[in-house]
Amino acid sequence: MSISDLTEDKRNIHLLLEYDGTDFAGWQIQAQGRTVQGELARALEILLKEPIRPTGSGRTDAGTHALGQVAHFHTASQLPTDRILRALNGLLPADIAVRAAEEAPADFHARYSAKSKRYQYRIHCGKSGLNRRYVWTFYQELDVEAMRRATLTLPGQHSFAAFCKQNPMPDHFDCQIADCTLERNGAELIFEIEANRFLRHMVRIIVGTLTEIGTGRRDPEEMADLLVSGRRDQAGVTAPARGLCLLRVFYPDL
Amino acid sequence: MSISDLTEDKRNIHLLLEYDGTDFAGWQIQAQGRTVQGELARALEILLKEPIRPTGSGRTDAGTHALGQVAHFHTASQLPTDRILRALNGLLPADIAVRAAEEAPADFHARYSAKSKRYQYRIHCGKSGLNRRYVWTFYQELDVEAMRRATLTLPGQHSFAAFCKQNPMPDHFDCQIADCTLERNGAELIFEIEANRFLRHMVRIIVGTLTEIGTGRRDPEEMADLLVSGRRDQAGVTAPARGLCLLRVFYPDL
Repeated sequence: MSISDLTEDKRNIHLLLEYDGTDFAGWQIQAQGRTVQGELARALEILLKEPIRPTGSGRTDAGTHALGQVAHFHTASQLPTDRILRALNGLLPADIAVRAAEEAPADFHARYSAKSKRYQYRIHCGKSGLNRRYVWTFYQELDVEAMRRATLTLPGQHSFAAFCKQNPMPDHFDCQIADCTLERNGAELIFEIEANRFLRHMVRIIVGTLTEIGTGRRDPEEMADLLVSGRRDQAGVTAPARGLCLLRVFYPDL
Repeated sequence: MSISDLTEDKRNIHLLLEYDGTDFAGWQIQAQGRTVQGELARALEILLKEPIRPTGSGRTDAGTHALGQVAHFHTASQLPTDRILRALNGLLPADIAVRAAEEAPADFHARYSAKSKRYQYRIHCGKSGLNRRYVWTFYQELDVEAMRRATLTLPGQHSFAAFCKQNPMPDHFDCQIADCTLERNGAELIFEIEANRFLRHMVRIIVGTLTEIGTGRRDPEEMADLLVSGRRDQAGVTAPARGLCLLRVFYPDL
């Protein structure tokens, strides 16, 4: 009997997760490497004594962090959610924390029920001793106003083919950007973006392109051109995963 | 000839430092263990080719972090400060960053010229995956209002004998608290305190006592009693070093 059989008879549990992606090969279970999904599955199986493969709202890259990743799993166990929360936090390694565990409707699905997500990307201007695991350390001067001007073209519906690692090829490249901000906080530049879906490496390629605008290598107007051309080879570098953090996943009823 | 000889002929350089204290045995050079001062001295000696022992604004405990530690050193080198900054950041390990390097007046002294300091202490309510190196993870419920009420007695001049590791014994226990705040930010409680001087473990014992007020083990009024009694054995536990960060050192003319 496979893990997914007979889920109708089981409870559906929703988890809110925080993790430091530094020492993970990403979210998704792989043949090799330590993964968040793998550690979570292992802890759930020890706790609930049944094979469980938790489903996430989406993958995060190796090195990418999360403050608000969401996952769900089905279980025959009757263990109350507050005890699941506490026991999982004891069983999980120090770099994963469960922030909340709650009963979810039977049809709740961490990925398919999600209506949007919000990511944050942190650039640190100059060397950072304290937050180095969570920022892209950038040593060149950045023209923040030029970068901000470039972000103004992002809200709305566009094809992000130029800002996507096209392997594997997605069904389509259209994303609806609900919000997009760039703020300076001391030595940090904090970019946040909220959209109904994100393509592979999308935030990191947008940020890489923004930094090339910030250094003056590109004009702010090129951002709009790239949305039209859809040419990945004309967009900027892929910013490192360490600066990226999944802040929140939004659901219609949660 | 010792390091401190003939400083009059030398330039005085002021450094603003940030570090992640997790993997250090504190600021001060010791016979054993990796220290911030030791790493800085080593990098300065490689760069400037003379024996240098930088002077800090004060020690930080093993595991305590800094966003704004200040140090000074004297050098015969004529290397411009922007090149000192860049070269030091290259020579120093990843967990120490020099945020600024500037010429200082000959009589500037990182410790004796300081007029006050500001520390931050972060308590995380429940397990933290992302910021676990920088917070005290606290699993009991905390009554933040009771804790805040207790902090109201701290501003002004008091003897902090009850909030001091009395080994070695300081000259006196009087400290002038200029400001003291306790804020909630999501799952974090952020305590900040600014004073003309801090005794050994002072912030950590204040925070430990505050948490005992937060759990209801003590009344908020006990904070005032402790300022009067001066009895270390009647105050609370010493909160772990990992939650503490030296935010800033203030000088009259900087």
